[in-house]
Amino acid sequence: MSSSLGQFTVERYCATDRARAARFQTAHAELLTPVFMPVGTVGAVKAMDPAEVSAIGYRIILGNAFHLQMRPGSELIARFGGLHKFMGWEGAILTDSGGYQVFSLSSLRKISEDGVEFRSPIDGALHFFSPERSIEIQRNLGSDIVMAFDECIPYPSDRPYTQKSTDLTLRWLERCQKAPLQPHQMLFGIVQGGSFAELRRFSAQQTASIELPGYAVGGLSVGEPKPEMLGMLEEAVGQLPLEKPVYAMGIGTPEDFVEFVSRGVDLFDCVQPTRHARNGQLFTRRGILNVRNARHRDSEMPPDEQCSCSLCRRFSMAYIRHLFVAKEIVAMRLLTQHNLQYFYDFMKGCRESILQGQWESFRRNWRENWLAGEAEDS
Amino acid sequence: MSSSLGQFTVERYCATDRARAARFQTAHAELLTPVFMPVGTVGAVKAMDPAEVSAIGYRIILGNAFHLQMRPGSELIARFGGLHKFMGWEGAILTDSGGYQVFSLSSLRKISEDGVEFRSPIDGALHFFSPERSIEIQRNLGSDIVMAFDECIPYPSDRPYTQKSTDLTLRWLERCQKAPLQPHQMLFGIVQGGSFAELRRFSAQQTASIELPGYAVGGLSVGEPKPEMLGMLEEAVGQLPLEKPVYAMGIGTPEDFVEFVSRGVDLFDCVQPTRHARNGQLFTRRGILNVRNARHRDSEMPPDEQCSCSLCRRFSMAYIRHLFVAKEIVAMRLLTQHNLQYFYDFMKGCRESILQGQWESFRRNWRENWLAGEAEDS
Repeated sequence: MSSSLGQFTVERYCATDRARAARFQTAHAELLTPVFMPVGTVGAVKAMDPAEVSAIGYRIILGNAFHLQMRPGSELIARFGGLHKFMGWEGAILTDSGGYQVFSLSSLRKISEDGVEFRSPIDGALHFFSPERSIEIQRNLGSDIVMAFDECIPYPSDRPYTQKSTDLTLRWLERCQKAPLQPHQMLFGIVQGGSFAELRRFSAQQTASIELPGYAVGGLSVGEPKPEMLGMLEEAVGQLPLEKPVYAMGIGTPEDFVEFVSRGVDLFDCVQPTRHARNGQLFTRRGILNVRNARHRDSEMPPDEQCSCSLCRRFSMAYIRHLFVAKEIVAMRLLTQHNLQYFYDFMKGCRESILQGQWESFRRNWRENWLAGEAEDS
Repeated sequence: MSSSLGQFTVERYCATDRARAARFQTAHAELLTPVFMPVGTVGAVKAMDPAEVSAIGYRIILGNAFHLQMRPGSELIARFGGLHKFMGWEGAILTDSGGYQVFSLSSLRKISEDGVEFRSPIDGALHFFSPERSIEIQRNLGSDIVMAFDECIPYPSDRPYTQKSTDLTLRWLERCQKAPLQPHQMLFGIVQGGSFAELRRFSAQQTASIELPGYAVGGLSVGEPKPEMLGMLEEAVGQLPLEKPVYAMGIGTPEDFVEFVSRGVDLFDCVQPTRHARNGQLFTRRGILNVRNARHRDSEMPPDEQCSCSLCRRFSMAYIRHLFVAKEIVAMRLLTQHNLQYFYDFMKGCRESILQGQWESFRRNWRENWLAGEAEDS
């Protein structure tokens, strides 16, 4: 049963909300959704060997056009046959357009209709990112899913500025669509619109009017209250075609996932599992554990008894706490492996419960366990 | 063919020097010598998962009584069934007595016939290490090879001080020998004697007069010129029994190994492969490569084409250089894996060439390749 590039097959919709389980065909992997995509900013998921990411079960990771262009340069990676070959990753890759990073730079120099001029935070060299340049970089990288170059506005932003920026992102999307890609690559558009329901709807309608293999919602979880975040998500998703995958950029925690999946989101990425791990925080079936906590000092238990990761199968909290406190590098890796396993298992649980028509009870059970344990390390 | 604890079986002596290939039976592994023992100071070989150290082929690692006593404490590790179980290591473990670290402390408070009083560099708590206490800590840790508690003197030290210290170390060895060990543990004595041939001979004779399963030579490679180091080694080894294993503490580089193996040394440990890796330096069959060097920026070659490690089998110098320059944690691990594989392969080469009667040609070929390449990154 081979499916063609970009084919999105919904296997089952939930009866009570917009949650769905689907398959999405990319050139390097068929993605089983809902799916979490680990973040491999500079061509490696932090602290992980690509083979370990794959061993957990992940078939797609993120790369970042901005960071990879700053160092080592997408042209160098292209000479190696693209990012897949450069980093030895056989699964699919989604690349950020660099928009988010460029607009976060303090050394941002000039923004115009054409694009953004800025200095590299690494060596101060002058760069210019435009829709065409971002796509060219992502073409060099050879990612499976290419993100449109968008303006990411700060929170809060007023309505006139948000309107202006939303329009600019839409014009940039049209330019992105005209820029050439490799045959195996697929462009996703990004819905913006800030905190204004009307602009979110407008942005989603206009973005959806351009026929693309998938659509993303950007500019969420940027500091706004959770109800507002979910409201904006609903406005956007409501205008997007049901027959295309939806990607919520930079989301989130397991608590977010259940809300977003319920509202029709299929793809997720977030630095939380990897960044939290390096800070000593473990996602478990009983909430978040802080490995530094003194109560773990002589605990013979693994972090999560139900977890199959390389840490939980072999080591005690006491040992991993010791390694972390002693600043041993391997601790970062073991904690990262665990968190990525947790995120993988969690998404697999979401998917299977949707397929079995048990999404509501999965959500409820997950939350009860999570909340029951969460107080332990606070 | 089972051999009993401490059995040391020389399989072949070299015809032209003191190099030899042997088997040494510890409780957790039979060691095939000459052997290199990776350093796992605080209960982990830096940047490595214990399973990876084992996968390379290593059957013995070091732990450090001083560091493990300071954190997390040997009593806690004893409650976990010892260091093997605490860190999930099934091979053998040799523990340093803590002498070297205690005498390196700037916060050293008081040295007496009885032992050394000092403050923990971690929390300032007062500690007292004596021969009996060091053995007790190592008994808690449950290591296979336990090192005597010795005084490590600075270089240079004058003859009166060296004489006095050598005598003290000998009296401490007698006390170590009387302290109880677990049945599977074996005590090694340590030859000191500084830079004085006569004291080295005296120390070795006196140490050898105590019947022990093995003997170490300490206080080498502490800043003295190489010819002096090798001279002191010869004075010591000349007085040690041929039928017991000899361990050169803290040695060294591959260039040292060929000299030490030729002079009858069987066991080695050193932080070089792991520490150099974290500094971006790779041991290869063509000398030491600096991964930062700009000439590796677009190199599609692995660091060492003849190496079977997880880095060289899969990645280019360009990718590993990129990860290292971008300060990705995984780079430290991949470089460490490589260096440990190199040290393992090198020792295996020593051993096999001795067994095949080709030690001299192995030494010569190794050196020619090493020197031919070494200039490349200078």
